[in-house]
Amino acid sequence: MGALIGEHGAAEIWAALRAGTKLPDVEGTDTQQRSTRTARQERWRARAQGIDPDALLSASAEMGGRLVVPGDPEWPGRLDRLGQRRPYALWLRGVQDLRNACLRSVAMVGSRAATGYGLHVAADLACGLAERSWSVVSGGAYGIDGAAHRGALAGGAPTVAVLACGLDIDYPRGHEALFVDIAARGTLVSEHPRGTVPTRHGFLVRNRIIAALTPGTVVVEAGLRSGALNTARHAQDLCSVLMAVPGPVTSALSAGCHRLLREWQAACVTDAADVAEQLGPIGEELRPGGGTALARDGLDEESRRVLDAVPDRRGTGTATIALAADLDLDAALGRLGLLAAGGFIERCAEGWRTRPDSGMQER
Amino acid sequence: MGALIGEHGAAEIWAALRAGTKLPDVEGTDTQQRSTRTARQERWRARAQGIDPDALLSASAEMGGRLVVPGDPEWPGRLDRLGQRRPYALWLRGVQDLRNACLRSVAMVGSRAATGYGLHVAADLACGLAERSWSVVSGGAYGIDGAAHRGALAGGAPTVAVLACGLDIDYPRGHEALFVDIAARGTLVSEHPRGTVPTRHGFLVRNRIIAALTPGTVVVEAGLRSGALNTARHAQDLCSVLMAVPGPVTSALSAGCHRLLREWQAACVTDAADVAEQLGPIGEELRPGGGTALARDGLDEESRRVLDAVPDRRGTGTATIALAADLDLDAALGRLGLLAAGGFIERCAEGWRTRPDSGMQER
Repeated sequence: MGALIGEHGAAEIWAALRAGTKLPDVEGTDTQQRSTRTARQERWRARAQGIDPDALLSASAEMGGRLVVPGDPEWPGRLDRLGQRRPYALWLRGVQDLRNACLRSVAMVGSRAATGYGLHVAADLACGLAERSWSVVSGGAYGIDGAAHRGALAGGAPTVAVLACGLDIDYPRGHEALFVDIAARGTLVSEHPRGTVPTRHGFLVRNRIIAALTPGTVVVEAGLRSGALNTARHAQDLCSVLMAVPGPVTSALSAGCHRLLREWQAACVTDAADVAEQLGPIGEELRPGGGTALARDGLDEESRRVLDAVPDRRGTGTATIALAADLDLDAALGRLGLLAAGGFIERCAEGWRTRPDSGMQER
Repeated sequence: MGALIGEHGAAEIWAALRAGTKLPDVEGTDTQQRSTRTARQERWRARAQGIDPDALLSASAEMGGRLVVPGDPEWPGRLDRLGQRRPYALWLRGVQDLRNACLRSVAMVGSRAATGYGLHVAADLACGLAERSWSVVSGGAYGIDGAAHRGALAGGAPTVAVLACGLDIDYPRGHEALFVDIAARGTLVSEHPRGTVPTRHGFLVRNRIIAALTPGTVVVEAGLRSGALNTARHAQDLCSVLMAVPGPVTSALSAGCHRLLREWQAACVTDAADVAEQLGPIGEELRPGGGTALARDGLDEESRRVLDAVPDRRGTGTATIALAADLDLDAALGRLGLLAAGGFIERCAEGWRTRPDSGMQER
């Protein structure tokens, strides 16, 4: 399907499936593949017939959700690294622009049945990264995923949870309140429409999105058979930075991390500074102008007006900045999010201020 | 002094120092170095005058010690990697032939003020290596050094302690009993004559010997300022295999190990199998004939007679083997030690037997 959409576009394929007409060929398909595809096409057709896109979209909108597709401004360009395995679309729920939230982000994954050590390290690491304006991308599971999200939220960064089910389903149930927090300050993501229940296979397929949204993946605590190693494999396939947190060699739940260090050439990271350093070179590539992820000269007129309105030391509220930049509140907020993700500014108690290391202060 | 001895031989230099005559020049010495050396030579001369070699040797022999120098059969060839910094001689005390004991050996170092975790891992690792016929080389300090020796002894391997003081001095005092055990089943080593008290600088200088005696060094638990990192530096300078055991990132006493993993490209090892695997390729080079450190064809006539007298499964005592090989007990014991260090045979409850993986069984 990825090959079909890549070659002919989603609209044409969707129309053909809905109309029940023959799907176009994909270049280089041999007889063997063609016969496999005939059976597949039957299944695709049956599923397409049963979908009411308008109902799905309006039901999603009712619960505050939205759908983004490749080409949308909010579509994270890093997902294109997945090639034919790129999601066709992503359902989102939450206040953060997904693309902005992922600009300076790191995937943080690990075991569901984490130890106290792992939970502590995950929360501490995520919080420290948040304080350096790095957001966290993870799953929605108990254990390391949950601790990473909570740490990131405590550190004041947007956090991104990629779920393997529809965004109307709170799975696991005990994370209902956490998902509310994430939607309020970050973004929930799924490639599945509402009503989709999670499957074992779905979690593994989901892992490619966690790895692809970020420039690097940290495995915090994982046994030898943990799904986190599957995410690590995706990160390695994508040539992302692969990192692992060591732990006691006496703990089976650190054995996966140690294998990554020993056999996969993962970088050994022990705190947020280590992770930032590993990701640094990538950030630097995006910062031709110096300390920020995007060059100041590369900013559009509106963003530059907003940046000029953000003070150096004591922060200022969004409303004041919007007024100074001559924008409405929503537009100003959008620009502020972008500038924060780009490393130009940061949140503080009073609102927003330029980052000490952005090269914007004392100008 | 290393350069002088290397160029002119120890005998000539010693004679000149004792006679108070001018020392010969070293090739490539410039004026600056020559003036530094004049001051040094005065100190060397004064010290040489105060030494009574015969008294030192007989006092050392009285307490069961011996002196080995480069060229002696017991001199470990690996020390020659130190170049001009090779020890001039080594004082030894203990039943093991130093060269044989170091053939299949690994340096195991770490903090004096180790945690329970570090002590446990050091002993466990050393014991596991001993069971694979790898002996341990370490210092004589509290903490990781002591735990490594105890683990190796528990696993039935000879263990080698390199001290920074004369072998008549038990430093630290609490290791008096441990040093007795090591002398009884392994070897104590020092480049200092009896009566020398340990100095801070002496420990660092000593570390080069620990690294040089072995094909690889494992740092088990070390803080960022631990002397173990100095040993690791020597190992790296000598192109030995450098290994580190990870620990909790929340433990300052594992921070040195994590730095080795992150910045020094140390191999991450979590158990004895990992260490053996890291050292494996080196062992293999020494085993053109298969599973043993030395090729069977490379053995001299006497060693081969002893090897033929060692049974496959149930072991046999030394006396029986000596009888079968037509050697006296001492000669047989020496050959058995060599064969064990070479990986051909191993100790067992009944005495000696061939190793299961030596390729000698079922022949």
